[in-house]
Amino acid sequence: MTDPVLARLKADEGILPRLVDYARLPSVSTDPAYRDGMAATRAFLKARLTEIGFNHVGEIEAGGHPAVVAEWCGLPGAPTYLVYGHYDVQPPDPVSAWHTPPFEPTVRNGRLYGRGVADDKGPVATAIEVLGAFLALEGALPVNVRILLEGEEEIGSATLGALCAAHRDRLIADAVISADGSRWRADLPTVNVGTRGNMALELSLRTAVKDLHSGRYGGAVPNALHVMAALLASLHDADGRITVPGFLDEVEVATMEERAAIATLPFDEVSWFDGIEAAPHGEIGYSTLERLWIRPTLEINGMWGGYTGAGGKTVTPAEAFAKLTTRLVPGQTPAHVRDVLTAHLNRMCPPFARLTLHLDDAGTPAYLVPPDLPLLGAVEDAIEATLGKRPLRVRVGATLPLSPIFRETLGMETVMFSFATADEDYHAPNEFFRLSALNEGLAGWVHLMRRLGRGR
Amino acid sequence: MTDPVLARLKADEGILPRLVDYARLPSVSTDPAYRDGMAATRAFLKARLTEIGFNHVGEIEAGGHPAVVAEWCGLPGAPTYLVYGHYDVQPPDPVSAWHTPPFEPTVRNGRLYGRGVADDKGPVATAIEVLGAFLALEGALPVNVRILLEGEEEIGSATLGALCAAHRDRLIADAVISADGSRWRADLPTVNVGTRGNMALELSLRTAVKDLHSGRYGGAVPNALHVMAALLASLHDADGRITVPGFLDEVEVATMEERAAIATLPFDEVSWFDGIEAAPHGEIGYSTLERLWIRPTLEINGMWGGYTGAGGKTVTPAEAFAKLTTRLVPGQTPAHVRDVLTAHLNRMCPPFARLTLHLDDAGTPAYLVPPDLPLLGAVEDAIEATLGKRPLRVRVGATLPLSPIFRETLGMETVMFSFATADEDYHAPNEFFRLSALNEGLAGWVHLMRRLGRGR
Repeated sequence: MTDPVLARLKADEGILPRLVDYARLPSVSTDPAYRDGMAATRAFLKARLTEIGFNHVGEIEAGGHPAVVAEWCGLPGAPTYLVYGHYDVQPPDPVSAWHTPPFEPTVRNGRLYGRGVADDKGPVATAIEVLGAFLALEGALPVNVRILLEGEEEIGSATLGALCAAHRDRLIADAVISADGSRWRADLPTVNVGTRGNMALELSLRTAVKDLHSGRYGGAVPNALHVMAALLASLHDADGRITVPGFLDEVEVATMEERAAIATLPFDEVSWFDGIEAAPHGEIGYSTLERLWIRPTLEINGMWGGYTGAGGKTVTPAEAFAKLTTRLVPGQTPAHVRDVLTAHLNRMCPPFARLTLHLDDAGTPAYLVPPDLPLLGAVEDAIEATLGKRPLRVRVGATLPLSPIFRETLGMETVMFSFATADEDYHAPNEFFRLSALNEGLAGWVHLMRRLGRGR
Repeated sequence: MTDPVLARLKADEGILPRLVDYARLPSVSTDPAYRDGMAATRAFLKARLTEIGFNHVGEIEAGGHPAVVAEWCGLPGAPTYLVYGHYDVQPPDPVSAWHTPPFEPTVRNGRLYGRGVADDKGPVATAIEVLGAFLALEGALPVNVRILLEGEEEIGSATLGALCAAHRDRLIADAVISADGSRWRADLPTVNVGTRGNMALELSLRTAVKDLHSGRYGGAVPNALHVMAALLASLHDADGRITVPGFLDEVEVATMEERAAIATLPFDEVSWFDGIEAAPHGEIGYSTLERLWIRPTLEINGMWGGYTGAGGKTVTPAEAFAKLTTRLVPGQTPAHVRDVLTAHLNRMCPPFARLTLHLDDAGTPAYLVPPDLPLLGAVEDAIEATLGKRPLRVRVGATLPLSPIFRETLGMETVMFSFATADEDYHAPNEFFRLSALNEGLAGWVHLMRRLGRGR
């Protein structure tokens, strides 16, 4: 017997076109060139939330990109949940690698392709459709719901903490349901109970006032690219260990029980690596899942310098640049990691190069959901009702700054509830969202709302 | 008593405007986008050489950019010299670093600024002006002169050898006077008797089919930039030594006499480094001049990969790229250096990365002028007559492929005779040519022609 709200959703042919309209809006938060796209996306969301019957629809901000908020609190005394999502997306670069343009969402083979469709416009649109269907059919939601759609998730949620502090009344709830976060994989019901943290750093090097002719100066003057290569190579050893002194100091070593639980998870490693045409490589002594979930990383996201055009140019480059990010695990504080990394880079940089570090980002610690949180049980029940199987508890190697921020500023715990899947090329060309996930997500949100309404 | 030809040149106010017209033509050989600029430059030179009275003006080619040739051989039985220059220039990148546009030559403070004005449109224009003045005033040159203006010097003179083989009759001479090559410095009369060779190589790395999300994959998959940084860092040790096994095998170790001669040269090292705001750094155990002249280099000219735009992007990059060039010293063969470098890179590349080497360039060996070559003595006399002081014999760290090519294909030795100076930002933004060098060059070429005509 299909839930009447779900039946209504299944009959609604406007859901996919509305998602396409949403994903067409270029809301790249990191690049000021997309300012208009960000504003248009907020306008779209406010119109839609008003249309489905939410109240107090508006924007709040704390010095960064504004967030969109709304609420339906028609059940005095009932629990209130904050539904979180983000409307910003990653840059589309390299655009030439996309088979169809990143901001012209296109359906091919049961998948919707476009920047942000999985991370996380598809999951947010799913939640909004379900909340709208409840209000349309029943005139009420099973519980009170507040909505917060952030505009800075892809740039580290820089002002989310300040937003929470300044707008507590618009956001406070019993717990947070995050439409962001993704499922581990498409073939196994899981619930995410942990995320890694992160911290970003840019570095630039200068060795001379200008690029020099490699014949007339080469050999007697420093080459900025040699210095940068050596500096970046000093971050790891050949066995994949991070070699920055102190970097691992604070890591809470996983228990044998935790490691055993990870080892028993079904995981087809061969297919996983085949799918990305990569070979296993990481910190020696840990399995692939351990490397992804319970061990930190320190990665170069970009490096550049010298002549990079067509043909050759015999220069001794005077400048070199790199962007680094880390993924942090429980126990690690971004401030300590930043300190040891800064100290290491300054110590390793030779005296004939001038190193500048750019540390604009305060970083985010890792997060673990309390194992006995009531919302976690409700989410597990909803997933079981949707997919027919009890989900396994897993972690994700990515970062959701919101969870530690909500915990710290408003005392709220967060459970991730997204039907997007981690293989959908988030942050890469040809990002996609499975249309099957859209349908599962609609059912999942109906089940979760009903389950929360029953209170157990 | 001023030479009448030199007097005529000093009175000619058209010389600088003609050089400006020449340098305005964008003849970048490495980039196909400048094909029209290359053709326009050849047309300009052919018109000018015809105008001053040269014969058989035309183009010769051997599969690459054509060269411009001309000759005046009106003295049967007299010696014949081939005047060599090149009409191609380096790319202007980074264009934003230029104070005035690279192809709008501009005079400021006694210097002409523009791409190619020193390397080597200014020196070539100087020679043409002098040859033209002899023909205009005296109806003849003191010796027979052939002219070869190459279009591929900045891309390693890829087809110059084939040109020589195919067009021997247009090029054969007793020796070559190169208008390319530059003076060591402005304050000391010198003659260049040696150049380093070179060899170029590009490498690309792939570690996965696409860039991956650093949270969802990072730590368990290889990062192409980590591999590239380690690979590039493996080329040198902290003391500036090249660590590629076999790289130094063929180097003819300099004698104590050679090293002593270098040590006695006047050289204000402090000013030299101050001028480029760089600190001394190179192979331990050698002086700055030794590092520049008698020791080889292996340099990264460019490296890039991952996200290099504004803001951050949390990717684990799947591709990385680098451009390398070497400078070779006497004894080293490009083929051996290429072999040991290829072997080293393949050996150092870990099994989880796929390395591709691009080795289009056959390379050029180093070159030493035979110490007793008659043309060398004539050039030393001409410099002494021009600057009032006997020049010191020095080397240059840069590469002139033409000298070994002329030796190998046509049995001709080459002496460099250029009044451009090595500090004039060849291959860098804001390249300039001293107007004083233009005047010295005019006098120098008059003296050299007269001296060669006397035959002693």
